[in-house]
Amino acid sequence: MDNARRTLIKAAAGGACAVCAAPAVANAAPDNAAETVINNILTRRSVRSFNIEPVSEQDIQILLQCAMAAPSAVNEQPWDFVVITDSDTLEKIAASNKYARFAASAPLGILVCLNNDKVKEREMCVLDIGMASQNIMLAAHALGLGSVFTGIYPHEDRVKGYRDLLGLPASVVPMGLIVIGHPQDAADKTAPDRFKQENIHMQNWSGK
Amino acid sequence: MDNARRTLIKAAAGGACAVCAAPAVANAAPDNAAETVINNILTRRSVRSFNIEPVSEQDIQILLQCAMAAPSAVNEQPWDFVVITDSDTLEKIAASNKYARFAASAPLGILVCLNNDKVKEREMCVLDIGMASQNIMLAAHALGLGSVFTGIYPHEDRVKGYRDLLGLPASVVPMGLIVIGHPQDAADKTAPDRFKQENIHMQNWSGK
Repeated sequence: MDNARRTLIKAAAGGACAVCAAPAVANAAPDNAAETVINNILTRRSVRSFNIEPVSEQDIQILLQCAMAAPSAVNEQPWDFVVITDSDTLEKIAASNKYARFAASAPLGILVCLNNDKVKEREMCVLDIGMASQNIMLAAHALGLGSVFTGIYPHEDRVKGYRDLLGLPASVVPMGLIVIGHPQDAADKTAPDRFKQENIHMQNWSGK
Repeated sequence: MDNARRTLIKAAAGGACAVCAAPAVANAAPDNAAETVINNILTRRSVRSFNIEPVSEQDIQILLQCAMAAPSAVNEQPWDFVVITDSDTLEKIAASNKYARFAASAPLGILVCLNNDKVKEREMCVLDIGMASQNIMLAAHALGLGSVFTGIYPHEDRVKGYRDLLGLPASVVPMGLIVIGHPQDAADKTAPDRFKQENIHMQNWSGK
């Protein structure tokens, strides 16, 4: 690649989506692998409306493989995943938790759980759950799927709702439900640019 | 792509690394964009030893752009980043925190912070920090860099160490230091396969 890393990955993707939406993936002609990966990161956005097409078993398997490829503190792999494709269950989730209301029209939810039986330090493992979740969402975007992370933990009412509905043991904490499907409005949305120079500090907090 | 999603991304990357290490990136001939992205996720591994080559300013900029492209709860973007390339500072970090000892031989550390002034619910935002961190590590891998996440939060002694050394305000919590550089042993390591079928539950906790 290069050319100053392809002019900083085309000025941070600049709204253009190299790998977004299923047909676009096959047609993309990225300059090389690094640019493709970075474009996928920069063009992912939260998707909240889906068409009726189910997510294939193959794609679900890939999403789960990617999730478990995340790093974790002292490699504890603190996660469990509940894969929900049953429309009744997805509707019940949407009805009981307004933050997951998008699940009602989605073909797939992956509940990402922290299993306290697998870990020594629960608080440190929350980061690992975030990393595994991001892997799922990035892989989904690459596969032409859309996704949105809907928060559960640390809200006890939401935790209890999922625990009761899905029969989770007391040691298993539902952290978030990633709602996934084929985007209803595939190609016409661009990712927001959230880059802020003021978030960057050089060498120490006061360094610019 | 397809062919059953290219035989489940070549049986979950199977140890082969399509986009690992700088020269390999340019030479990779992935079948298409989705496979490239997923291979990058599946072949990332923690790298703890680095050669002396610095990380370019361009690459640092790309890593930070990718970090800030992560989603966050109610889009609060709860993060700040301290970019550390000063070798004295990296050595001091390594000397004071054994879990970050790899920083001594690395050209770059990115301290990922949660800024309580930007958020309403600190506990929920920990997940966002994990997502931003994963973006950094995946982008690093794509650029031929290696990285390792070294934990800080919730260990108060480590939090205090970084706060004192880098002048962080009381509202800013250092969550982890991502140590980054060009891998010393670029091409000869394969990523571990952490996939476990028993982590997957169908429709509810007891479903297989």
